[in-house]
Amino acid sequence: MPQDVTQQLARFARHSRPEDCPERVRREAARALLNWIGNPIGASGHDTTQRAIDALDDFSGRREASILGRREKLDIFSAALVNCVSSGVFDYDDTHIATVIHPTGPIASALLALSERVRISGPDFLHALTLGIEIQCRLANALMIAPARCDTAWFLTGLTGGIGAAIGVGRVLGLTEQQMVWAIGIAAMRASGPRETHGTMAKNLVPAWAAQAGMQGAFLAQRGFTTSETPIEGPRGLGYLYAEQTHWPALIDGLGSHWEMLQNTAKPFPSGIVMHAALTGALEIAQAHLPEPDAIERVELTVHPMCLQLTGRRAPRDAVEGTFSVYHWVAVALREREIRIRQFSDACIADPANVALRDRVQAAADERLRVDEAHVRLTMRDGRVFERHVDHQLGSAERPMSDAQLLAKLHDLADPVLGAARVDELARACREIERAEDASGVVRLACPN
Amino acid sequence: MPQDVTQQLARFARHSRPEDCPERVRREAARALLNWIGNPIGASGHDTTQRAIDALDDFSGRREASILGRREKLDIFSAALVNCVSSGVFDYDDTHIATVIHPTGPIASALLALSERVRISGPDFLHALTLGIEIQCRLANALMIAPARCDTAWFLTGLTGGIGAAIGVGRVLGLTEQQMVWAIGIAAMRASGPRETHGTMAKNLVPAWAAQAGMQGAFLAQRGFTTSETPIEGPRGLGYLYAEQTHWPALIDGLGSHWEMLQNTAKPFPSGIVMHAALTGALEIAQAHLPEPDAIERVELTVHPMCLQLTGRRAPRDAVEGTFSVYHWVAVALREREIRIRQFSDACIADPANVALRDRVQAAADERLRVDEAHVRLTMRDGRVFERHVDHQLGSAERPMSDAQLLAKLHDLADPVLGAARVDELARACREIERAEDASGVVRLACPN
Repeated sequence: MPQDVTQQLARFARHSRPEDCPERVRREAARALLNWIGNPIGASGHDTTQRAIDALDDFSGRREASILGRREKLDIFSAALVNCVSSGVFDYDDTHIATVIHPTGPIASALLALSERVRISGPDFLHALTLGIEIQCRLANALMIAPARCDTAWFLTGLTGGIGAAIGVGRVLGLTEQQMVWAIGIAAMRASGPRETHGTMAKNLVPAWAAQAGMQGAFLAQRGFTTSETPIEGPRGLGYLYAEQTHWPALIDGLGSHWEMLQNTAKPFPSGIVMHAALTGALEIAQAHLPEPDAIERVELTVHPMCLQLTGRRAPRDAVEGTFSVYHWVAVALREREIRIRQFSDACIADPANVALRDRVQAAADERLRVDEAHVRLTMRDGRVFERHVDHQLGSAERPMSDAQLLAKLHDLADPVLGAARVDELARACREIERAEDASGVVRLACPN
Repeated sequence: MPQDVTQQLARFARHSRPEDCPERVRREAARALLNWIGNPIGASGHDTTQRAIDALDDFSGRREASILGRREKLDIFSAALVNCVSSGVFDYDDTHIATVIHPTGPIASALLALSERVRISGPDFLHALTLGIEIQCRLANALMIAPARCDTAWFLTGLTGGIGAAIGVGRVLGLTEQQMVWAIGIAAMRASGPRETHGTMAKNLVPAWAAQAGMQGAFLAQRGFTTSETPIEGPRGLGYLYAEQTHWPALIDGLGSHWEMLQNTAKPFPSGIVMHAALTGALEIAQAHLPEPDAIERVELTVHPMCLQLTGRRAPRDAVEGTFSVYHWVAVALREREIRIRQFSDACIADPANVALRDRVQAAADERLRVDEAHVRLTMRDGRVFERHVDHQLGSAERPMSDAQLLAKLHDLADPVLGAARVDELARACREIERAEDASGVVRLACPN
């Protein structure tokens, strides 16, 4: 056991300066914010969001923090929770593909809520967001060495997101190194997240509770609430309990020089990331060959095993379950030749034409494929065959979404709530957050007047 | 995988009636409340409690629920958290010895806070408490089949307490079977609790966050917030992720006829339960033979391995760490010939006379012993030897604390805060809670005027 993994993280989080981050890192952090923020706005009226608000509203403390995309406010812990819940509804945020975590949600939710209580300058906000994402991706790598349970049973965002949020919030609160250790430790002790929740509303509580755990950890640590000095690497700590095998160098080597957060990518489709290689192929075929949906005899997918383990639902009953059905979304991609947020609906799931095509989609797992690789083969009733091999899916580190694609995604998500003009303003505020005097300006633009 | 473990729990929790519980079960539930409630009162001024309040107070929602032993109120979630934190400070609550869980804390904290928002009759309160404790003990048994990690690395109260609290609170809220499944599921997804926290303030957050998870799970479920139908037994659920091996019959067989909560026992000493067999022997020798502390040459303990794994701290630095030092507490028992809450202090840890005797205590682990068994051997400087073999520690199911001992314990804990007369009233209110029209009367008596 290395002696001081947590200590090293705390020292880095405390002493790293915004100007120490390369321009590319700062740019990617701003892109991560821009990419993510459409989600809580777009899902602000969704049933999942509404039920969470209904359950928690009456218990809210001082209403300091906004529910993104809405006019109500909640206390900062509850607002962070609700915004993180809503940001997961469409499964359209971001992914560190090697570990399938979605790092921005817990950290951005916590920091945006905090920004309405504590004045945070743009550069400080961006730096806290960067550090939180960075540590979360590194920690997921360090825990990822473990067996199948970490791939398909643990929702790793729930094991790592709280620590990321604790670091981001702790940084803003100006915690000492010792306090930062405790904040990390308190968040670590609430690590959780069974994938059993996938395809239900509660899936979105996993990162949301991580956001709360990190925030509360930072506030408790600020008051001197103690915990172990070795919560991550200790003999009964996070690594031992959750990962069975760990690789701590992935967590601490090259802090400040190697930036793992550059491997985090924006999701181009509102569905489980592990089906995106198949979706990329289906869309390419649909757009290149315009196959008539009714004339498709069958669709054969070859995918990484995790695609079927996580998104292998044959007959999703509603839009939330649909995010875990590769069959459904491939059918939609082929029928509509584009993927837009309006398709994330119960009506789209129930549409008989989608169901009919979905039932003609077959999928086989092949362990030799990478997670972001897939083969798609269409056989038409007239005997023609269209095939596409996707080496790297759209939204992978090798084929990241362009700035223009990110902007289009934000408009797709947020225009119905805020209108296009305001969304353009919001996009600019995210892109230029480093020049902002007060980061909470982003929150104001993310809510209707 | 059994098809419907969670469903069976939900059905039982929904339909079980107070009058279906044998008188003995109802009596033990009332004793569990009486035994537990001195703890949050006694620790209401402790640093741990104060720091939690300091960190959370400013975020409180409507101040409906009391902090036990104090005059302030917080929202019900925060009050449950603080009361459960304080109830763990002295490690003096209760234990289901087979699994070393402390079941009353998360459930009583949640239900007492809830009783100040929703009127709960005495019988309903007692029944909800009973069901929560019962399911928690059963679930711990079902997960306990797992390897060493469940004994000494996982703090099982954190894995089971949320589900117990969800059931207790869900029962009071009148959840349907379907909602109860979701409440259990939402609590299950927040299961956590590394023993790495032991000997720090954060140890007490583990059951406290379980209490919150259960409460929030019930309120979310009431609003239709969905999760898996099989959160416990499902392929990526609680059992698979945390236990590796499970034994579901221990969870569901004989619900309503076999009462596992009768195996839950009150702790007679404010310290880790696994040292109580050694403490029982040391006290018996001290009281029978009155050995002069300075004349003791050495003390040799033979204990179950878990005693040293969990409470083997040689040199505790403060009272919180002291709860995990069998050496310290055996020295105190021999020097003072009784164990009282006033000894739970940093001064007692630092007392040179205690340190000197503590350093003459040796301990060896013997796997053949049960957890509640120990051998204590004193060798005096003059060559005399005093020995005691403890088959079952005080506070075991075989040697439970008497009603008089429970009352003395409550006075020891609560008199400094409330005064003896009010503590007598409180004891009566707990004992007779089944006759109360409104369970919140207990809360009023547990706070100063």
